[in-house]
Amino acid sequence: MAENKKHIVKSKDFLFGTDDSDALLLDCGKKLHSVNIRYETYGKLNANGSNAILIFHALTGDAHVSGWHSEEDRKPGWWNDMIGPGKPIDTEKYFVVCSNVIGGCSGSTGPRSINLATGKLYNMDFPVITIADMVRAQRRLMKHLKVEKWLSIIGGSMGGMQALEWSISYPELTESIIPIATTARLSPQSIAFDWVGREAILTDKNWDNGDYTENIPENGLATARMLAHITYLSDESMRRKFGRNLQESESYSFDFKRDFAVESYLQYQGQRFVERFDANCYLYITRAMDYFDVSAKAGGNLAAAFKNVTCPFLVISFSSDWLFPTAQSVDLVKALLKNRIDVSYCEIESSYGHDAFLLEIEVLGKMISDFLRNRLEVIDGK
Amino acid sequence: MAENKKHIVKSKDFLFGTDDSDALLLDCGKKLHSVNIRYETYGKLNANGSNAILIFHALTGDAHVSGWHSEEDRKPGWWNDMIGPGKPIDTEKYFVVCSNVIGGCSGSTGPRSINLATGKLYNMDFPVITIADMVRAQRRLMKHLKVEKWLSIIGGSMGGMQALEWSISYPELTESIIPIATTARLSPQSIAFDWVGREAILTDKNWDNGDYTENIPENGLATARMLAHITYLSDESMRRKFGRNLQESESYSFDFKRDFAVESYLQYQGQRFVERFDANCYLYITRAMDYFDVSAKAGGNLAAAFKNVTCPFLVISFSSDWLFPTAQSVDLVKALLKNRIDVSYCEIESSYGHDAFLLEIEVLGKMISDFLRNRLEVIDGK
Repeated sequence: MAENKKHIVKSKDFLFGTDDSDALLLDCGKKLHSVNIRYETYGKLNANGSNAILIFHALTGDAHVSGWHSEEDRKPGWWNDMIGPGKPIDTEKYFVVCSNVIGGCSGSTGPRSINLATGKLYNMDFPVITIADMVRAQRRLMKHLKVEKWLSIIGGSMGGMQALEWSISYPELTESIIPIATTARLSPQSIAFDWVGREAILTDKNWDNGDYTENIPENGLATARMLAHITYLSDESMRRKFGRNLQESESYSFDFKRDFAVESYLQYQGQRFVERFDANCYLYITRAMDYFDVSAKAGGNLAAAFKNVTCPFLVISFSSDWLFPTAQSVDLVKALLKNRIDVSYCEIESSYGHDAFLLEIEVLGKMISDFLRNRLEVIDGK
Repeated sequence: MAENKKHIVKSKDFLFGTDDSDALLLDCGKKLHSVNIRYETYGKLNANGSNAILIFHALTGDAHVSGWHSEEDRKPGWWNDMIGPGKPIDTEKYFVVCSNVIGGCSGSTGPRSINLATGKLYNMDFPVITIADMVRAQRRLMKHLKVEKWLSIIGGSMGGMQALEWSISYPELTESIIPIATTARLSPQSIAFDWVGREAILTDKNWDNGDYTENIPENGLATARMLAHITYLSDESMRRKFGRNLQESESYSFDFKRDFAVESYLQYQGQRFVERFDANCYLYITRAMDYFDVSAKAGGNLAAAFKNVTCPFLVISFSSDWLFPTAQSVDLVKALLKNRIDVSYCEIESSYGHDAFLLEIEVLGKMISDFLRNRLEVIDGK
């Protein structure tokens, strides 16, 4: 989507936990010191502080959700069609914040950061983190930004998990929650896919117990990505996009190189991914997703998990998403309704599979912008 | 299922193509010489030759479909509940034949066989074969066994592909076809899963361009198997069987070893698989499946593909099979009906996913035994 003028933004950094008393206490029992949070903000916080929106990103996302870092950038932020001046989440109206999760490799502290205690990269010395740990770190950022309450917290996929986790960890700190294409607990099928992806990395000859330097475990990481990528598309979208079309020639090559268009596409996605993401981070973030079960502290009772939650929800799923299918959003909606929470729910018809949360911007944008405007009107007493 | 008396069977071998004139001409244009077919037979061919049934196995199956090879065997043949004396496919009534596909590693000629031209293992010198090539080899076995026409040809999954291929290659040589949990052409999603599985093998440091000896590419093969295994189960069966249960302890280990029951299960399946299957064979057989499109010779027109077919079909799919979903069987049924072929079709309600064809024996057995009895009565003029 071409824009006449590029909306230039800058990433910022927020460091905390240099003192032990300020370190981040993690679910595993360890403490994380000197935690950097890479974040971006768009728009301005209004006088009564009612227009702040927190965006959580998905597995391989980052803080750069909107705009361009420079005029030369080939691509804008990952949800640029959704967020920006005049966009559905209008940054002329809202103050939007997005930060990179801890455990990641896009600026926030993670396994490829320097461990100040040793002077070396953490790698596998990095503690295994959870979705709740990611949310705890973002709670610190909220204080730093002097936001007292979010108008809304919005996230798709793993971002939706963080939104749900926030709703039970800090129910008093948001006016609404918008979980999109997500789940309240990772299913055994998803845990299984994560396991196979990690096995591909862990058995790569270059992985070297996580201490790789120049020779990165790119085969393992690409294999993990290609596998995951299949789960982001739908059977139908693959038929429409590739069918059984051949890429290289008019007939079968009778070898094991790429023959089909879908093979070329996957290979390309795998190669691009290893240029922008890190193998150890992939291990840590998928593990955090495996461990995600918002009902765990309530003994597996999903309705009981939300007993202290009062703010309204807008829950959205996509008809062809088989990674986090509609049935999982319906389970969530039922659990919220048992707590008499005000829930709007929509299953959007889409053939794009899980990736629909990044692609179905028109219908998603309309739904979210209406919901936010109504929330803001209620809160500002209009 | 315990049986009082073990039904002992022996595998046999049939060698052909030692003369160039008798070699197997393959779809890739090459010839395969000295082709061995490992097969088993059960029951006896009747006087008028009307009771012969050909069973095709799936990707990792073999000729041992029923009975035990010895009293000491831990497990019987792979479809023992379906085939044997007094079973739904009753070997006291029918003459049943099953052979290992070429390209495999369970007795028939494949990449791990000796290439007589070089005196060494074929490995990657083995020609890339197709489902039609597998069927051509089994046509030779039919002649050897002096069967003039099959009462029925039955196969699940890749076995169903062979059955469909037979129906268009040799329509005059069977009285009926029973394709189960299969597809008329591999979907791009399945091609994609096969690609990722093969990538895991091809990038294993032990694969060594296929020339491995002692150090087999077991990590790659196990990863490929674990991935495929997920596609054989359903989301629902994984929930029922594993849920989010932990295997080793009562709380998360906060590491990357197996925590969840589903992870242990996959790891076990991967380890067991490398003991019984070969990595190069996995490459070749999955490639044969990728290349399978029964409509290819008819320019992609599935109905036109069956224009010379007249025999009745019994088509069966399973409700939770997302690898070869019901919609693909429905496409097949529609194509057959356009040719005024007598088609019985059933979608069996099952939560077992693709594996249902090995597990839903009661309902499947009733359906198949009724169909076969009717066919035999018609043919024998009763």
